[in-house]
Amino acid sequence: MEFSELIKTATVEDVLLSRQGLPAVRGTLCITSHHLLLSSCPRGELELWLLIRNVDAVEKRVQNLGWYQHPRSGGSLQDTRVCGSSGTITLRCKDLQVLQLEIPGMEQCLNIASSIEALSSVDSVMMLYPFFYRPPSLQLQQGWHLRVPECHFQRVASQTSRWRLSTVNGDFSACPSYPPAVMVPAAVPDDTVARAARFRQGGRFPVLSYFHPKNGTALLRSSQPLTGPNRRRSREDEQLLGAILAGAGAGAGAGRGFVLDTRSAQAAKQARISGGGTEPKSAYPGWRRLHRALDRGRVLQDSFSRLVELCADPTVTMERWLCRLDSSRWLSHVKAALSTACLAAQCLDREGCTVLVHGAEGTDTTLLVTALAQLILDPACRTLQGFQGLLEREWIQAGHPFQLRCARSASSHARGKQEAPVFLLFLDCVWQLSRQFPLSLEFGEKLLLTLFDNAYASAYGTFLCNNEKERSLCKVKESTHSLWAWLEQPEEKHKYLNPLYSHNPLVIWPSVEPQSIQLWQGFFLRWIRPSQHLEEAWGQIQRLVQEKRQSQPLAEAPAGTENGKFGTR
Amino acid sequence: MEFSELIKTATVEDVLLSRQGLPAVRGTLCITSHHLLLSSCPRGELELWLLIRNVDAVEKRVQNLGWYQHPRSGGSLQDTRVCGSSGTITLRCKDLQVLQLEIPGMEQCLNIASSIEALSSVDSVMMLYPFFYRPPSLQLQQGWHLRVPECHFQRVASQTSRWRLSTVNGDFSACPSYPPAVMVPAAVPDDTVARAARFRQGGRFPVLSYFHPKNGTALLRSSQPLTGPNRRRSREDEQLLGAILAGAGAGAGAGRGFVLDTRSAQAAKQARISGGGTEPKSAYPGWRRLHRALDRGRVLQDSFSRLVELCADPTVTMERWLCRLDSSRWLSHVKAALSTACLAAQCLDREGCTVLVHGAEGTDTTLLVTALAQLILDPACRTLQGFQGLLEREWIQAGHPFQLRCARSASSHARGKQEAPVFLLFLDCVWQLSRQFPLSLEFGEKLLLTLFDNAYASAYGTFLCNNEKERSLCKVKESTHSLWAWLEQPEEKHKYLNPLYSHNPLVIWPSVEPQSIQLWQGFFLRWIRPSQHLEEAWGQIQRLVQEKRQSQPLAEAPAGTENGKFGTR
Repeated sequence: MEFSELIKTATVEDVLLSRQGLPAVRGTLCITSHHLLLSSCPRGELELWLLIRNVDAVEKRVQNLGWYQHPRSGGSLQDTRVCGSSGTITLRCKDLQVLQLEIPGMEQCLNIASSIEALSSVDSVMMLYPFFYRPPSLQLQQGWHLRVPECHFQRVASQTSRWRLSTVNGDFSACPSYPPAVMVPAAVPDDTVARAARFRQGGRFPVLSYFHPKNGTALLRSSQPLTGPNRRRSREDEQLLGAILAGAGAGAGAGRGFVLDTRSAQAAKQARISGGGTEPKSAYPGWRRLHRALDRGRVLQDSFSRLVELCADPTVTMERWLCRLDSSRWLSHVKAALSTACLAAQCLDREGCTVLVHGAEGTDTTLLVTALAQLILDPACRTLQGFQGLLEREWIQAGHPFQLRCARSASSHARGKQEAPVFLLFLDCVWQLSRQFPLSLEFGEKLLLTLFDNAYASAYGTFLCNNEKERSLCKVKESTHSLWAWLEQPEEKHKYLNPLYSHNPLVIWPSVEPQSIQLWQGFFLRWIRPSQHLEEAWGQIQRLVQEKRQSQPLAEAPAGTENGKFGTR
Repeated sequence: MEFSELIKTATVEDVLLSRQGLPAVRGTLCITSHHLLLSSCPRGELELWLLIRNVDAVEKRVQNLGWYQHPRSGGSLQDTRVCGSSGTITLRCKDLQVLQLEIPGMEQCLNIASSIEALSSVDSVMMLYPFFYRPPSLQLQQGWHLRVPECHFQRVASQTSRWRLSTVNGDFSACPSYPPAVMVPAAVPDDTVARAARFRQGGRFPVLSYFHPKNGTALLRSSQPLTGPNRRRSREDEQLLGAILAGAGAGAGAGRGFVLDTRSAQAAKQARISGGGTEPKSAYPGWRRLHRALDRGRVLQDSFSRLVELCADPTVTMERWLCRLDSSRWLSHVKAALSTACLAAQCLDREGCTVLVHGAEGTDTTLLVTALAQLILDPACRTLQGFQGLLEREWIQAGHPFQLRCARSASSHARGKQEAPVFLLFLDCVWQLSRQFPLSLEFGEKLLLTLFDNAYASAYGTFLCNNEKERSLCKVKESTHSLWAWLEQPEEKHKYLNPLYSHNPLVIWPSVEPQSIQLWQGFFLRWIRPSQHLEEAWGQIQRLVQEKRQSQPLAEAPAGTENGKFGTR
C-alpha cells in the first residue's frame, strides 16, 4: 500500500477552520501521509498541524446553496460564501478536540473526508507515523534501553533474596504477552514456572509486581487459572503460589495471602464454563479470595463516550448535568478502581499479607489495581522517572494491549469490541491522587494528558502494539523514537514537573468517598473550557520555584533528582 | 438577665470529647458565659475553646447502663466506662463542625445541654460576646471609621460629576435599613429622593451601587416599588430613575436602562396583591424589565441543610451522592446567582446600559447580584481591602439583615422564617470566581471561611444587627471590636492573602455552565475531610513568594498594595 493511493485530494484552498474557543481561520488545507495541515491565507502561518491518527470520527455534511452562510459566522460578509456547493467536515479527535472544516466544492469535501478516514484507520503498525518520524534532537536508541525489569529487580534484590529474575519467557514461549524477564520466587525453578504458565489464561503466570520492603510482603499479578468446568488443577501453579506464602515476611499476616479477583464472585464462577475460573480454596492453602468487581470493556467504553458527549453539551441544565454525570457512571468507575487499589495496598501494608491480583485476562483491571497500589504505597513511583518506570513495568511491558484498547476513543461509531479506556481510568485515578496530595507527585496534570494523547495517537513508538513480543516483531525499538527520550529533554521535562513536589516517604491513602472524587475537568473539559488561568497559576509557581533555585545555587539538589533512575531507589 | 442564671452546671470532670478526624480526648469541661472549654486531664492542655454562639443544635442522649462502652472506642479498656448513667451531647455548630461530649451522670449531662442551649440562643445583641471581648492587641475604635461610603464617593467623583453623596438618610428617616450616606443622581434634590423613598418597600430608594468608568454606566439597587393592586405611581421615583438615564454615558446603550428583577415575572406580578410590584413600562420610559428568578428564604435554607446533611453521610454511594447533590439544588443556586451577576455586568460593560437591580425587599438576592457584578467588573474589589470595602458597602451597610439571616445555620431544628444563607451563597460564588481565576483575587479561601464563621458567630461586632440604624442604637462601633481591624494585623492578614495574586485590570467573566460549577469542598467538607495537603501546598507557595520578596527587597512593592484603601483607586 502506498499512502498516495489513500489521498484523493491533497490540497484545497479557501478552507475555513473552526475550533472550540478559538477564532475561525481561513487557509489552505493539505493532506500528507500522516498529517493534516492548514496554513492561513494572508499571512501563510501554519494554523493547524494535526496527526491524522488522532482523528477518531469523521462527520461530513454537504450543502448545495446559492448563498451559504456558515452558522457560526455571525452574519459578517467576510464569512458569507458565494458559491454553488460546499461541505463541512467535523473531525472528532481521540484527544477529544473537535475541529470543523468548511470546504468549497462538494467533491473536494467528500475526497478530503474519505482520505482522512482511510489514513486514520491504517491497520499496519509499521505504516504508522512513529516509523517515519525522525526529530533532529533525538537518536533512535535513546530511551529504549532503560532495562526496566532489571533495574526493578536490582532494587528488590537489595531488599530481599526471595525473588529472582527469570528468563523463562526469554523467547516469549511461556507467555506471549509478558516481557522476556519477569520476577518469580527464588525457590521455584523455571521448568515449574513454565508448566504453571500453561494453567493460566494466555500463559500469564503469577509474577512479582511490587515488593513491600516495610514488611516483606509482595504484590503479584497473573491471569485467571484455567480451572474450567472439570475443576482442573495444576500442581506447578499450586507449588508456585505455595512457595510465595512459605517464606513471606514476618508480619502479622506472614504465610497468608489474598487473591484479589477483579470480577464479581458470580462472574468468576461463570468463567469456568469457558475454561477459566478461580483458585479452589482447598488446593491453595493460606490463600483467601476477595472479589471486587471492576467494570471493563464495553461498559467502560460506553461510560467514557457518554461522559464526553455530556461534557460537550452546551445546553445542559444543572439538574440534567448532575443526573447525566451520575448515569455516565464514570466517577463510579474511578471510585471503584481507587477503592480496590486501596484494598490491595491495605492488605500488604496493614495486614502484612501477600496479594495476588487477577481478573480474567489479567491485562486490564489487574494492571489498573497493581499500578495504583504501587503509587499509593511506594514513594519511588511518584517521581517523574519512577512513574515512567511504573508505566513501563505495569502497563507497557506487562502487556496491556494498547493497540486494541486505544484504537478508537470516545466518538468513533466504528468501535470494535476490544476498545476500552482502562488506561484513561488509571490516569484519572492518578489525577485524583495528585489532587488530594498536591505535594507528593513529582509530575503534574500535563504529563497525564500527554500520556493519554500518546497512547491514542503518537509520533513515538512507546505505546505501539499490544505487548513486547509484537514490539519485537515490528522492530519498534529499532525503528521508532521513545516517548521517554523526548520527555527526558530538559526543556520538555520542565513542563511536566510539579513545582511543589517534595519527597513524601509515607503511604498516601486517598479518600475514596463519593464526596472526594471529582470530575477531571482538565481532561474532560480541556478543549471546551480551556483552563488558561489555572495554567497561568501553575506557570507562576514554576517560575517562583525556578527563581528560588537560581538564587540558591549551592543549596540541596532540586526535589526528586535524588531518586535516581527508573524505579530504582 | 445574668449569665450565671443560665449556667446550671459550670464544670464537669472526666468528659470525653470526640471530633471528626481527630483522636478523642478526655478532660474537664467548663461552661462560661460565652465559651465552652475542655482541658485535657493528664496534661491540663486546653483542647477546645468554643464560642457557645457557634452552637447551632444540641442533641442529647442519656443511657443507664452497668457497662457503657463508647461506640467509637474500638474496644480499648481505657475508653470503657464503669458507671451507672452517662449521656452524650452532640453539638452541631454553625460552622458545620460536629462535636460529641460524653458526660458522666445523667443530670450533669442534661444540665450542660440546657446551659448550652440557653447561652447559644441569647436574644439580646448587647449580651453577645463582642460586647465583652477585649483583645489586648486592638483598640476599640480601630477598623470602624473607614468612611466606606465617603471613600467610594470620592472614587466615583474623580470619574464623573453625575453622582453626589446625599445625607437625606442622615437620621435613618428615609430608609431605616440604609446607611446615613448614600449616592444619588446629582440632578435630583434630597426632598425628591425622600419622597421617592416612600414609594419603595422599606424606603429603599434607588441608590448607586457601582459606577463603571469605562463607559459611564451605573449599577443601582433598590427594593420593589409599592405599585400595589391600584397601580400606584410616584412622580418622584419616576423622576429619580429618569434623571439616571437622562445623562447616562455615551455608549451604545446611552439613555437605556434595565430593571433586573430577581423574581420571576409571575412572582413580581403577584407581589402587587400585597402592595409591591414592578415599575410599569409606560411610567418609566427607557427602562426595560428582565426577570431572573433567584431562590431565597426557606428554599435556600432547606437547600443548604440538605447539602450539609448529605456531605456528612458516610454511607452514601456514588450514585446516591450525585443524585442527592442534584436534589439539594445548591449548585443550581450558585449557577443562577453567578449567571444573573454576569447578566448585570454584561448589560453595563457590553450593552452600555444602566442597570437597576431589585427583588422584593432588596436586601438579599439584590445584594448578591450587585456585589458579584462588581467583583466581575471591578479589579479594585478583588484586593483584600477592596473586598472588605465591597462587603461593608454592599452587605453590611446596605442592610443585609445578618442577625435575622444568620441566626441559625444548617442543623438547627428551631429555625425561624427569616434564616437564609444568602451570604454563604455569595461566598460560594466568590470561591467559584477564585477557582476559575486563581491569580485575580488577592485573597484566598481562608478569608471566605473566616467571613462565614464570623457572620454566624463572632467575637467581633462587624456582622452584628441587621442594619446601620440598629448598630447605632446598640453602640456596636463604640463597644465592640471590628473584624477588619483584627484582619488588618500583619500576622493575621498574611494568612488570607493569595500568594499568586497579580493585578488583573480586565473584567473576569466566569464560566457559568453546569460543567464549570464545583462543590466548594473547602467549606462543605471542611471538618469531614480536612484538606491538610491542599493547605500545605498553599503554605509552600506562600513561603516561596515571601522568600522571593525577601531576596528582592528593592523590587516593586508586593502585589496589591498599590490598590490603596478600601475600594478607592
